[in-house]
Amino acid sequence: MAPLQFQPLSSQPTPSFWSALNSLKLDKLKLDDSEQPMEAWLEESREIHDREKGGTIGVSGSVGLGSGAFGQESGERPPAGSVELKGVFKNYNTIEEFKATETKKEIFNSVADSILASFETNAPQLDTFLLVTFADLKKYIYHYWFAFPAVVSKPAWEIEEGGLVAAEDQLVAEARKLADDLSNRSGALLVRGPAGQRTAAPVKDATAFFEGVPSSERIVAFHDPSHLPDAPGWPVRNVLFYLASKHGLSDVTILCLRSGSSSRIGRVSLPGPLSAEKPTFVGWERNKIGKLGSRVADLGPMMDPARLADQAVDLNLKLMRWRIMPSLQLEKVAATKCLLLGAGTLGCYVARALMGWGIRNITFVDSAKVSYSNPVRQPLFDFEDCLDGGKPKAQCAADRLKKIFPGVNAQAHAFTIPMPGHPVPSTGTEATKADVAKLESLIAEHDAVFLLMDSRESRWLPTVIGASLGKIIINAALGYDSYLVMRHGAGPDQQDGGKRLGCYYCNDIVAPADSLSDRTLDQMCTVTRPGIAPIASASAVELLVSLVQHPLGINAPAETASSAEQEPSKGSPLGLVPHQLRGQLSQWKTLLIEGAAYDRCTGCSKIVVDAYRKDGIDMLLKVFNDLEYLEKLTGLDELHRESEKAMEGIEWEEGSDEEDF
Amino acid sequence: MAPLQFQPLSSQPTPSFWSALNSLKLDKLKLDDSEQPMEAWLEESREIHDREKGGTIGVSGSVGLGSGAFGQESGERPPAGSVELKGVFKNYNTIEEFKATETKKEIFNSVADSILASFETNAPQLDTFLLVTFADLKKYIYHYWFAFPAVVSKPAWEIEEGGLVAAEDQLVAEARKLADDLSNRSGALLVRGPAGQRTAAPVKDATAFFEGVPSSERIVAFHDPSHLPDAPGWPVRNVLFYLASKHGLSDVTILCLRSGSSSRIGRVSLPGPLSAEKPTFVGWERNKIGKLGSRVADLGPMMDPARLADQAVDLNLKLMRWRIMPSLQLEKVAATKCLLLGAGTLGCYVARALMGWGIRNITFVDSAKVSYSNPVRQPLFDFEDCLDGGKPKAQCAADRLKKIFPGVNAQAHAFTIPMPGHPVPSTGTEATKADVAKLESLIAEHDAVFLLMDSRESRWLPTVIGASLGKIIINAALGYDSYLVMRHGAGPDQQDGGKRLGCYYCNDIVAPADSLSDRTLDQMCTVTRPGIAPIASASAVELLVSLVQHPLGINAPAETASSAEQEPSKGSPLGLVPHQLRGQLSQWKTLLIEGAAYDRCTGCSKIVVDAYRKDGIDMLLKVFNDLEYLEKLTGLDELHRESEKAMEGIEWEEGSDEEDF
Repeated sequence: MAPLQFQPLSSQPTPSFWSALNSLKLDKLKLDDSEQPMEAWLEESREIHDREKGGTIGVSGSVGLGSGAFGQESGERPPAGSVELKGVFKNYNTIEEFKATETKKEIFNSVADSILASFETNAPQLDTFLLVTFADLKKYIYHYWFAFPAVVSKPAWEIEEGGLVAAEDQLVAEARKLADDLSNRSGALLVRGPAGQRTAAPVKDATAFFEGVPSSERIVAFHDPSHLPDAPGWPVRNVLFYLASKHGLSDVTILCLRSGSSSRIGRVSLPGPLSAEKPTFVGWERNKIGKLGSRVADLGPMMDPARLADQAVDLNLKLMRWRIMPSLQLEKVAATKCLLLGAGTLGCYVARALMGWGIRNITFVDSAKVSYSNPVRQPLFDFEDCLDGGKPKAQCAADRLKKIFPGVNAQAHAFTIPMPGHPVPSTGTEATKADVAKLESLIAEHDAVFLLMDSRESRWLPTVIGASLGKIIINAALGYDSYLVMRHGAGPDQQDGGKRLGCYYCNDIVAPADSLSDRTLDQMCTVTRPGIAPIASASAVELLVSLVQHPLGINAPAETASSAEQEPSKGSPLGLVPHQLRGQLSQWKTLLIEGAAYDRCTGCSKIVVDAYRKDGIDMLLKVFNDLEYLEKLTGLDELHRESEKAMEGIEWEEGSDEEDF
Repeated sequence: MAPLQFQPLSSQPTPSFWSALNSLKLDKLKLDDSEQPMEAWLEESREIHDREKGGTIGVSGSVGLGSGAFGQESGERPPAGSVELKGVFKNYNTIEEFKATETKKEIFNSVADSILASFETNAPQLDTFLLVTFADLKKYIYHYWFAFPAVVSKPAWEIEEGGLVAAEDQLVAEARKLADDLSNRSGALLVRGPAGQRTAAPVKDATAFFEGVPSSERIVAFHDPSHLPDAPGWPVRNVLFYLASKHGLSDVTILCLRSGSSSRIGRVSLPGPLSAEKPTFVGWERNKIGKLGSRVADLGPMMDPARLADQAVDLNLKLMRWRIMPSLQLEKVAATKCLLLGAGTLGCYVARALMGWGIRNITFVDSAKVSYSNPVRQPLFDFEDCLDGGKPKAQCAADRLKKIFPGVNAQAHAFTIPMPGHPVPSTGTEATKADVAKLESLIAEHDAVFLLMDSRESRWLPTVIGASLGKIIINAALGYDSYLVMRHGAGPDQQDGGKRLGCYYCNDIVAPADSLSDRTLDQMCTVTRPGIAPIASASAVELLVSLVQHPLGINAPAETASSAEQEPSKGSPLGLVPHQLRGQLSQWKTLLIEGAAYDRCTGCSKIVVDAYRKDGIDMLLKVFNDLEYLEKLTGLDELHRESEKAMEGIEWEEGSDEEDF
């Protein structure tokens, strides 16, 4: 008789396992570090051809950890013939917790206790493993430690003289068939009876099944991961302990089912009585240098960089949801297609903030080229983009977005948006029609339109088209040390019947006209404190995202600090969704302003939108060519006459005492 | 007799002339489009060797416009022997004004009128020219039109049979000497007398000088730009008209001084009586295609792109000064050397805003590498910077600044700033000493230090060094949807004796300690709404610039809306210079907060700064290694004991009625 020894188990996580762990952590667990159920598989040992020496060599089976470990749908299947294992998974939130000995001892003991407790039930857990991890999702480095807790038998078990011997092929074949018939894919089964007429039962039925069977004919067969001639694999330890302690077996024959013709058999004695004290468990996997310690999987170098970037970008966003804002609908934000009219200072900063929010579809429209003064203020351009007359801004901005993040879908169009009061020469009518059609289809294809141009009148056409199509319009305009950021109201088709919010033109009582000719240099350049643009752009993007998160979307009312306090649950999880922000940098002040829609508005009123819908390009050409058309259409001209008339009776006093007159 | 014809003048602006115009416009005129005096020079015609045909050909002299045209100090001197011209310069603010015929007619006539008016004085202006321009400073395209208004003589002047003939060398030599002796470098002079004994006088003295001189011996000599054998140059027209109309000369001999041996001489008759009506003037230069029209100088392609960028960056800034903020001291801003501790989200955005303000010296300190999640949030990094483990962030950020603007002086240093509560192992003492020394010298070399790190305790060391050296410290920190931007007070050496403002640590009653270990993933990444960083960064830079512009600089009091109203002239031209800004994005709100310095502050109190000054690195090592040292030093530990003692007598009621207890 010699002491019975067991070959320890080794774990084999596949790369897709780590990917599954990523998803579990980011999307489900977040900061939850409680124990989770998980699955794995156990392979029998195999024989492989030894190229060097000829003949075959044995290779141990591992515990395979795959993409389906956490119950996700997965294309990855365990190899045929492998045993299903159930386990316990725990991911620590910090490397320090992971490294602490105490926490790992605790969970190991708790798994051991649950194994012992299961012995008292009708479903003993004999194949339970443990995996603890710390996942550095920023670097794709995974610290992990696998354990298969197994009882230490006291006194030690022994194997009969001669040890394990080759098992007869017929017995092996019969046992395999019986195992398949039992079809529980568990690790071990009981076998009895004469050759050719053998029967099987699950381990839990040992007492009844082996009743009256001579001890020499009681066979415990199991799928064996060990390839060592004299040592069975680790998992049978708990099986034997269970049979000894719960079913009183003091000796059995173990049949180690191994692949090919390498299965082994032998008789073992399980001397008793077992100690009354709680048994101890062992089973932490050794690391690559043979020590008891955790392992590290560094997937960074083997991952596709573009995919790494993709996941990394999502990471920061998902982290927001973890602790702070579980109700945040990131997918809704990410799915918002954004059209940026203008690729200047505002356009560049807006695009960057949109990328930060995970928005993947960004289209620029701009007809200008990158000039030397741009790069220090427009954060998508470099000095070299200015050379040789300058690259087209829209395309250059889109190209840069791809350099920042290859996963973005960035498009560019270079054309000038037709404007009221900028007459179209007859030779240019076709080109203007094409530009209008292009803008119409672009707005139709996107969910949100940003007005980021440097003139008042260029915002008119997208305002009308947006109001007609019910698109979200976010408008940003810069002053010297002030800015306006606003969302346009929902347009004349507003759904909820509430008070309709105004657009950029609702406060005007004159129609937009040519303000571009006859400008001095400081009017041609946007003269503004350098800090204004990033503040306004970031605010514009945050306003869009807040609006997208609001349950009423484009129909959300203009919120103020007091309105939100009344019914916070009905609003956006990101906070207030105001109508207009007016910022003043010299005072470090931002005013939240609400402006109602104006029924004579030249941009979003029903009159204008209806005329556009009815006559399309013909109506638009009138607007471009005829300075007075819009004011006539909306009745603003009449209003002017009325107010002039009202003035007539008044005599202005000259030289009055009021100096501030 | 044949009608006397004149060779029209051509203008020849040098590239440095346009550069001088740039400076005049940007720094002095701004939007002032009033008429300005200017200077030019007129060259005599030259003979040059004709390579093709052999022999010499004549080349007209031009009106040279150079870098000294507007009275600036200039290395450029008019060519030897050239005549000084005085002129009138007018720059239009818009291309439309420049192109309008009326405005140009007006100014031409006004110059002609002033020429005529000068005839009645003792200093007739016979050489006055006019230059009108429109300068597109963004593109370096200059529209200009030169004129030399000259009288149209009615009836026409005539030249005697035979026209101009070669002048005798002796006469020419004598006339040149007399011109030099007159040393007024004007275009024309009067000469009389027999060969070898000739004398000269300025044109204004004609009546007296030619008294009794036979008309055939009255010589008008002038430096002649014409190279045509039979036509004198344009400028002599006004001389002849002046002599005829004011001095009653009806015929004179003109001596056209030309270079080499090509001078010409001839007798002209100036028939009278001159009409009583106001004479008409002509003299607009023809353009390259021979039409009366303006010319364009496009300097863009010939300029050094790096210099173009340099000027373009300044342009936007200078434009601010034009209309809006004449008192802005851009040079003071540009000269501010900035040290950015941290090249992450904040560092990248801060650097961009600093560049926008024209700041040319930016140094980054960061020990991290660019990771995949960075580029969409950190606007100095691209995807490719993440590959192969990532580039060092500080160097990568500095390199990018140079790509944006080659004129920047961007430096990078990769080291970790030692921190309180992060003990230094004995083997690491030398390295820590080196890091401290590096940080000390960097802070000493810069004017402003930005604290843009992602932990609380890493801000401690630069806070203490900055307080000791009296440097401006701007601190920015991000929350999930909030931010803090503040400037530290002037430190214990504050100059003006007023209330001292606090630093980042002045509100704390515990010393900074290790907060970096044991962090969960969302704590390791800065989880923040993407719009927060650009807003906070831009605010931090605007706060710095406002502070630099404040007459009290680092000693400026914490301003609020009401304090500024009292004495706006004593503050920064950019508006309020608050102490702290606390922004809350969910409310779109920014609070201006003032916090006084705390005499037990672990960062900026006199106790701490004095201990640092006295013991230097030894004191710092105690701080890093001994968690309790700072609290003992400042007496915070005593404070804790006192407050604990004060609590002793209090019995806490459990189960009290107050639910919000």
